[in-house]
Amino acid sequence: MVRAAIVFLLTLVSVLPGQTNPASLVARQWRQTHEKAILEEFSGLLSIPNIATDHLNIRRNADAVAAMLRGRGVAVQLVEAAGANPVVFGELNTPGATRTIVLYAHYDGQPLDPKEWATPPFTPVLRDKLIEKDGQVIPWDRVRYPVDPESRIYARSASDDKAPILAIVTALDAIKSASLKLHSNIHFVFEGEEEAGSANLERILTAHKALFAADVWLICDGPVSQNRQQLIAFGARGVTTANITVYGPRRELHSGHYGNWAPNPAMMLARLLTSMKDETGHVLVEHFYDGIAPLSETETRALAEAPVPDAALMNELWLGGTEGSPKKLIELLQLPSLNIRGMASSRIGDQASNVIPSTASASIDMRLVKGMDHQKTIDRLIEHVRRQGYFVVEDEPGQDVRMAHPKVARITTLGHGYNAVRTSMDLPISREVIRVVESARGPAVKVPTMGGSVPLDSIERAVGTRTITIPIANHDNSQHSSNENLRLQNLWDGVELMAALLTM
Amino acid sequence: MVRAAIVFLLTLVSVLPGQTNPASLVARQWRQTHEKAILEEFSGLLSIPNIATDHLNIRRNADAVAAMLRGRGVAVQLVEAAGANPVVFGELNTPGATRTIVLYAHYDGQPLDPKEWATPPFTPVLRDKLIEKDGQVIPWDRVRYPVDPESRIYARSASDDKAPILAIVTALDAIKSASLKLHSNIHFVFEGEEEAGSANLERILTAHKALFAADVWLICDGPVSQNRQQLIAFGARGVTTANITVYGPRRELHSGHYGNWAPNPAMMLARLLTSMKDETGHVLVEHFYDGIAPLSETETRALAEAPVPDAALMNELWLGGTEGSPKKLIELLQLPSLNIRGMASSRIGDQASNVIPSTASASIDMRLVKGMDHQKTIDRLIEHVRRQGYFVVEDEPGQDVRMAHPKVARITTLGHGYNAVRTSMDLPISREVIRVVESARGPAVKVPTMGGSVPLDSIERAVGTRTITIPIANHDNSQHSSNENLRLQNLWDGVELMAALLTM
Repeated sequence: MVRAAIVFLLTLVSVLPGQTNPASLVARQWRQTHEKAILEEFSGLLSIPNIATDHLNIRRNADAVAAMLRGRGVAVQLVEAAGANPVVFGELNTPGATRTIVLYAHYDGQPLDPKEWATPPFTPVLRDKLIEKDGQVIPWDRVRYPVDPESRIYARSASDDKAPILAIVTALDAIKSASLKLHSNIHFVFEGEEEAGSANLERILTAHKALFAADVWLICDGPVSQNRQQLIAFGARGVTTANITVYGPRRELHSGHYGNWAPNPAMMLARLLTSMKDETGHVLVEHFYDGIAPLSETETRALAEAPVPDAALMNELWLGGTEGSPKKLIELLQLPSLNIRGMASSRIGDQASNVIPSTASASIDMRLVKGMDHQKTIDRLIEHVRRQGYFVVEDEPGQDVRMAHPKVARITTLGHGYNAVRTSMDLPISREVIRVVESARGPAVKVPTMGGSVPLDSIERAVGTRTITIPIANHDNSQHSSNENLRLQNLWDGVELMAALLTM
Repeated sequence: MVRAAIVFLLTLVSVLPGQTNPASLVARQWRQTHEKAILEEFSGLLSIPNIATDHLNIRRNADAVAAMLRGRGVAVQLVEAAGANPVVFGELNTPGATRTIVLYAHYDGQPLDPKEWATPPFTPVLRDKLIEKDGQVIPWDRVRYPVDPESRIYARSASDDKAPILAIVTALDAIKSASLKLHSNIHFVFEGEEEAGSANLERILTAHKALFAADVWLICDGPVSQNRQQLIAFGARGVTTANITVYGPRRELHSGHYGNWAPNPAMMLARLLTSMKDETGHVLVEHFYDGIAPLSETETRALAEAPVPDAALMNELWLGGTEGSPKKLIELLQLPSLNIRGMASSRIGDQASNVIPSTASASIDMRLVKGMDHQKTIDRLIEHVRRQGYFVVEDEPGQDVRMAHPKVARITTLGHGYNAVRTSMDLPISREVIRVVESARGPAVKVPTMGGSVPLDSIERAVGTRTITIPIANHDNSQHSSNENLRLQNLWDGVELMAALLTM
């Protein structure tokens, strides 16, 4: 009867070449007839503020996600550790299954400044297109269904990373509606502090090793390819961050009465940052590139076959040049990077006054590839700063320290960076994941390492598994910035993808 | 009778060696018996917000200052020009006088961010010492007179530049109380937009040339020497400012997904700023130092004789080194400078997120010495930026411009910088001013050029006069920054100084 239903459905929906996964087709039909309910559920989840440090609201998120899973028959528990945000763990076990698959996502979102948002970040709104393309808000009570799939939902975590959670529970509804069977033990792990660096994840996983064990963890996070093609990433760059503050006079000084004499920390910082990278994008921190693992033949071939969205992206981003030119974006993402996330000293523009600033600060992140160690990389950065003549301290330096050294830099780190991982594309489980994903979404872009970072090393280390990342969000989602959004078609595609993965 | 009164006073007050000016001694006596009334009048004036763009309050300041002068028998008019803040002009003419002296100050103050102030900037408070030395607020109703002269009044413009206005009117009271005679025509010019660059002063002076004519303008602005000795500056550096913005991607990008590929504007700005100055403080903008007028023999000698507060200042400011070392502060102030006033790109610290910023901006000022032209200096800066490969624009660049050039910089200027001036120390009027000042305040530090800038070139050009600057504020006044303050002893000294100048 199930098969009959599927055959019937196949006659109703428009199927693209290569999209032959029965669960995906069921999921599409379900979505098309339930868009309103799906978006209402999504909007409800996005309305709960989810900054990792906001523990009260984080718990509200965890409870909401747990309730969403339980409503679909999933056995759920909140896995707790002192000082950590709860991990929502769910199980759908299949009697006789020989394979366990974890679907991972995170329910916390990046910190934000509400003033920079066009609409409040935790009041989801629908826009007919991107804000940058003059997209207008469509009030929820005036939305017509089916919704134009090019519409966008604007809210913190609309794409990063509550979209996969919604896609999963919707796919579960669809699967149940068609009485499709699962073939693997499907487990869910939804983390609550990924954007804060996943400081406690490894500890939690290690403490519950058996619970979290699996043949593979499928990491549902990040964006798909810029040409909107499905992406499968077999690794992710690691990351580590540092805040650097350099010091001038104890208080701001009049730039007339002291200019030329009092050291200007903004100029010192500019010089220090300049010393870290050359104009071609090559990082000048000593030994930065040491020990990097080379790519395999399959990985090199996959990169060569990947689409090249560079020209279209440059147009979209108004770029007249790129940093690592002539290398392509996808090639550059296989390399480590050093990036200034932000920089500040005194005031600018109309707020500027004639002063020599007292301090200047920059926040940087370094993305790491397989073979690099995050702690060693920080050590190399500190050593580099020392080579520029700085006395490096961790705590705010007092008069003694500042007077004893002409150049003092305070370097602080979050203390919980993580390393890159890369799962071989040639493993049987890797090949199986590729097959299932492509049966749902057609030919996929397969990359050895995606640019973004997820704490995959701690997962692999703690539970002895391997990870493969399968994102669903659109690339132009303003993830990590203001006005984060999700393109609806990406959510719909995600539902179909999740249905395929759940039934693999 | 007047002479008898003075002789009597001389027996009462403690006179320092060299302080023999009768009007100064009268002024000291007056101040010592009227501290409460003086501080109340000062507090009232400081309570009126005085940012140059706040036209309503600026006019309240002008009216208040005019009323203060009229109350002392000065004939006052507000000199107006379309779009300009009023100049308060006052006259105390002496029948038969052959000399006209202008006392100049300004009643507007630097822009500010109230959040950075310990107490609201327009609610004057008295503290027993510097905030940095844990100075505590003394409520006005609990002040005991005479006040500890090391106390500080905290308020915007407490030192820069309402203090001289208070000193002048108090000195007028003292002079009147002792029936002392004036010997010159004394005119007062109190400007209302000096901190906004004195954009209209030259136009106003030119339109009223006869009104503002004088043998010398004494500029009462800026701080005295760091060792608290009286300063006479025969010139001031000119100034010009520029805001520079460089561009990365149109919107902030995820640093993982685009790092190494999308140009980082913060790094571009760091590199650009670094190209402008070397580690020794030498400005690298091509032709920056061209055409500078050399110092005379008297000027060179005066510099050699000036005190060297450098070591004490380094201690006060927690500096382990200075930029132009081994040159002394006072030598370095005779040279032009290029200073970063502020710098910003995206967010730092706890607010930072994993992004490649979209833009990065810096505000810079350049201090100019005799022989440099402010417009030419800006042109040289722009040319320098071009030499670093930038396409330079004045307006916000659109997609076309940004895509046509890998490096785009927007440079805007206030458009009203001004040049340095330097009055010869060997002129008769210069020698006379030195004599009178030293009779009131003892041996003075005499410098060819002080570090700060006042629009002296436009004054000299417009009314064909010469200028000499005689400051009264303490050097550690946080002028142009938050928590601006005036040390009371500097106000008291200023009263004595003004009494001497008024009666010269």
